[in-house]
Amino acid sequence: MSNPRTNIAALHAYTPGEQPQGAEARRVVKLNTNESPYPPSPRAVEVLREMSADALRRYPSPASRELCEAAAELHDLQADQVVATNGGDELLRLALTAYAAPSSDAAPSGRGGIGVTDPTYSLYPVLAATHGCSVTVVPRTEAFDLHEATAQRWNDAGCAVGFVVNPHAPSGKLLGFGRLAELARAFHGVLVVDEAYVDFAAHDALGLIRGADALPNVLILRSMSKGYGLAGLRLGYGLGSAQLIGVLHKARDSYNVDAVAQAVGGAALRDQAYARTVWQKVKDERARLAETLREMRFDIGDSHANFVLARVPADLGTTADKLYEALKAKGVLVRYFDAAGLSDRLRITVGTAEQNNRLIEEIAEAIAAPVAAGGDA
Amino acid sequence: MSNPRTNIAALHAYTPGEQPQGAEARRVVKLNTNESPYPPSPRAVEVLREMSADALRRYPSPASRELCEAAAELHDLQADQVVATNGGDELLRLALTAYAAPSSDAAPSGRGGIGVTDPTYSLYPVLAATHGCSVTVVPRTEAFDLHEATAQRWNDAGCAVGFVVNPHAPSGKLLGFGRLAELARAFHGVLVVDEAYVDFAAHDALGLIRGADALPNVLILRSMSKGYGLAGLRLGYGLGSAQLIGVLHKARDSYNVDAVAQAVGGAALRDQAYARTVWQKVKDERARLAETLREMRFDIGDSHANFVLARVPADLGTTADKLYEALKAKGVLVRYFDAAGLSDRLRITVGTAEQNNRLIEEIAEAIAAPVAAGGDA
Repeated sequence: MSNPRTNIAALHAYTPGEQPQGAEARRVVKLNTNESPYPPSPRAVEVLREMSADALRRYPSPASRELCEAAAELHDLQADQVVATNGGDELLRLALTAYAAPSSDAAPSGRGGIGVTDPTYSLYPVLAATHGCSVTVVPRTEAFDLHEATAQRWNDAGCAVGFVVNPHAPSGKLLGFGRLAELARAFHGVLVVDEAYVDFAAHDALGLIRGADALPNVLILRSMSKGYGLAGLRLGYGLGSAQLIGVLHKARDSYNVDAVAQAVGGAALRDQAYARTVWQKVKDERARLAETLREMRFDIGDSHANFVLARVPADLGTTADKLYEALKAKGVLVRYFDAAGLSDRLRITVGTAEQNNRLIEEIAEAIAAPVAAGGDA
Repeated sequence: MSNPRTNIAALHAYTPGEQPQGAEARRVVKLNTNESPYPPSPRAVEVLREMSADALRRYPSPASRELCEAAAELHDLQADQVVATNGGDELLRLALTAYAAPSSDAAPSGRGGIGVTDPTYSLYPVLAATHGCSVTVVPRTEAFDLHEATAQRWNDAGCAVGFVVNPHAPSGKLLGFGRLAELARAFHGVLVVDEAYVDFAAHDALGLIRGADALPNVLILRSMSKGYGLAGLRLGYGLGSAQLIGVLHKARDSYNVDAVAQAVGGAALRDQAYARTVWQKVKDERARLAETLREMRFDIGDSHANFVLARVPADLGTTADKLYEALKAKGVLVRYFDAAGLSDRLRITVGTAEQNNRLIEEIAEAIAAPVAAGGDA
């Protein structure tokens, strides 16, 4: 009787990108997990420094009230259209908890599961496996566009929740607002638009949940990890109709966001001037990095995120996995996915100008001596 | 299709005790949610003040490695016997996620649910409702002891997880180690021993998971909220066999504990000298408070927690709910539960000597003039 549920026993947990700690963390150029290369707002750091011992001692606001008010004001919504979460990941989990039907089966199947596109953020299917529900996968096109039958296939499978990360990970591709609206209208379940990377994009999806035509089945995810340099704080939030958000409030843990994250995150959100400066710097560097890598014959699509997906051309004299290892040996971490359609590419976080220069130098060197590590030249 | 699961739609979310914020928080004497009346360790506060902006910027250690090592050293366990969580509440949820079987039913029933005693921490059944599994309730005796058939009834109902809060909430009663071991051996599921209040108790249950006779089905919960004055930080951890803890690591969110909680919580754990001083002060005040209230004819059992449960005698000229309201009107918050077996009692957190004196004065005044607020005298 004290065996875990079959879905948990069989679970392959999510594999985060390497997170070196301590001294090692200070040595490496870390371009593998899409953190901001810039520190958070000085105002946010000041709030951290000035936290009272009393704020640690007392329970925080259960519903993160002030933080939700700050987010609502920023996005021109009402506070009851916001739920704050322990990282964006908690919001994703809550969407499953509240809307997806677990099956008691070892191999979950059947209606009430989740729909995803492929490739996508690899946590979605892990959350489904943890919850014990089915996953319906609709491949993206070669250019990482949505398959035109995405909503129909999700509906046919009876999906209760659909996940679209936009800008897309790991390509950085941004779907047009109209295409997203069309998907949301056609899909019968809750559509989660995961905007973890939207701070670096040309437009967002907030129009879907505002005004007279607001769609009640759209849940927008925002993260403080990338655009606000607060990955260590674990803070995200969800935006949607008051009804949908009310359901997620019921499903969350009683005090899901700590007092530090509420205060520091709120200060960061209110310092939009600083945030916008950071976003512009990342976008400028993204353009320069992409251009330089293209000159080195890498194939790179338009990215609206704080990373680029670089395809290694077949005749470059190395492969994506070898290049990943060569860079790692030199202390430069990027992300390699051993998955269909991605195994010839590297996902590279946009760093500071200095970090990007270092990356480019190391790539140039690795390309110039592709078999140096092999020992059989 | 975009309706929530039936169990979520029907859910009555957990009601936290009142948490006044801002100026109101500074005015009231807050003896309603069992926070420590003392600030956290000065070393922990120092770690908070010295957090680098870089620690906020980067993702934290996914498995809270250093914190788990500190807890393992403190409790004479191995680091793989520890899982850190976003408050103890997350650990409770993870036990359900990993071991309890959700039913697709509107009114969950059937095997694989949870077992609780009654009364108990009111979050357990809320978590079960959120998960969508059944709850088997075995009443405690009038003296808040375990019913002798607890394990048998849980087994008969096919419970996958049993919850015992020890010291007991809301009575403060401590079960003997032998009684707990007997329950753990007789129960066929995972027994969660919720030791949120154990820092104020005469003994703990760690002997159940240490040494050659360690029981593989026991999960011990620890919280930093009460004994370490860190309720605002949301930090708890679970202790058990490496196998059981490994299952919970798989079920948790990828980065479930933020960098601040890991660093500050670790510093607090390592400052045992400070913690023990605080615990002793609380125990001394608990004895004094209980004695004084008994002199005022309240009925109070032995408490091993940082609160006392005070029964209002029938002939005192007031009732528990009226006394709760009268105290609240004077700015003293205590906890009243409108539930069978509890409606004639108040749960009062042990405060500082000054806070306890104020409480006692206000109670004396309310008893002296029980109908003052009624206006019909």
